[in-house]
Amino acid sequence: MENSERMQKQLNFLLELDKLKNRYRQTYIANDDLPCGSAEFEDNFKERNPLPRKENDAEHSFSLAIAVMLLSEYSNEPIDTLKTLKMVLLHDVVEIDAGDTYCYDASGNQTKRERELKAAERIFNILPSEQAADFRSLWDEFETNSSPEARFANAMDRIQPMLLNNYREGISWKEHGIHFPQVAERSMKIKDGSQSLWEHFYSMLEKSRDNGILPE
Amino acid sequence: MENSERMQKQLNFLLELDKLKNRYRQTYIANDDLPCGSAEFEDNFKERNPLPRKENDAEHSFSLAIAVMLLSEYSNEPIDTLKTLKMVLLHDVVEIDAGDTYCYDASGNQTKRERELKAAERIFNILPSEQAADFRSLWDEFETNSSPEARFANAMDRIQPMLLNNYREGISWKEHGIHFPQVAERSMKIKDGSQSLWEHFYSMLEKSRDNGILPE
Repeated sequence: MENSERMQKQLNFLLELDKLKNRYRQTYIANDDLPCGSAEFEDNFKERNPLPRKENDAEHSFSLAIAVMLLSEYSNEPIDTLKTLKMVLLHDVVEIDAGDTYCYDASGNQTKRERELKAAERIFNILPSEQAADFRSLWDEFETNSSPEARFANAMDRIQPMLLNNYREGISWKEHGIHFPQVAERSMKIKDGSQSLWEHFYSMLEKSRDNGILPE
Repeated sequence: MENSERMQKQLNFLLELDKLKNRYRQTYIANDDLPCGSAEFEDNFKERNPLPRKENDAEHSFSLAIAVMLLSEYSNEPIDTLKTLKMVLLHDVVEIDAGDTYCYDASGNQTKRERELKAAERIFNILPSEQAADFRSLWDEFETNSSPEARFANAMDRIQPMLLNNYREGISWKEHGIHFPQVAERSMKIKDGSQSLWEHFYSMLEKSRDNGILPE
């Protein structure tokens, strides 16, 4: 393959992934300009933040990448940070075609796997073949949760929306009528990647249940 | 420091960086649902895409991270991909406080350095001290363009908006009355990181000039 043809395929893939900026999730962004956790913040929270917007897949993937950089020390098993970063950056590209399936949507989740496999086939094959195979194998590994890197990446994919949702006083849980046992069960995948992060987040969820943010 | 105090600082930093989802740049997202470059796409481009929205810093940083994964083979010098990824993920965090300074805004660029240094001081120090120092040093290195990784990261920071802007037929160049020599001069930093990517983008800019997207 000529160098310029190869480069053009790679730039087409970069442009293709720009569509993730238009694939919206159920989680709301934090959307606040005061230092998080400050007294000033607590005082004015509800008044200044009636309803922020939801986040998209590009923003979500950015946050997961930051989380990997920040928190890899808490992984249960040693991980290759570069591989884990690549994995979280690519984990949602299939949503360009398949859309976001809300994690508590039972019927959507029945067809999710098939829709996503078809999307992976189209999207990764925009790339030169050996790079397509490399990226696709990272996505497969994430999906099957079959390595220390995948387990940590999946843990990040669980804690990031929980952190935002808890910060926004359970806004998307309330919107969808989600209860404590559903979120608690979903949190178990954090434990596979990081026992200590799971303990922190499980205790956060219990607090949310006790103060009514997350109904029993 | 207790483990839980350390983890809380790290999670506060993650929440703090969520604000990048509200810091908007001058570049417009690609915003299109047809395969890029297809005939179908070319036929309907203007009709379906009158004016998309601008992108924010979280989305921009996500795109740079994908670009690093995709294109590191074109670096002039061998680079540590993990370090380069961390650098692009962190390069704009100072804009939480300092805002985005448009690259062709001469007066804004006179005060930019001072505003950004103050922001770096506050934001990185949310973290435990050794992690703050580590992240801060990556930001400093990017700013001073003083390593192969920084030169490649800065090249990505130049090509990504050029790619989008060219794709959108020069929309933000037109909005700000930007001419070919300004963009051509700005493209020189690409050459420091990657000769072959610079050649590709310089020739793209010449085409944009020749067909009137970018006035002479």
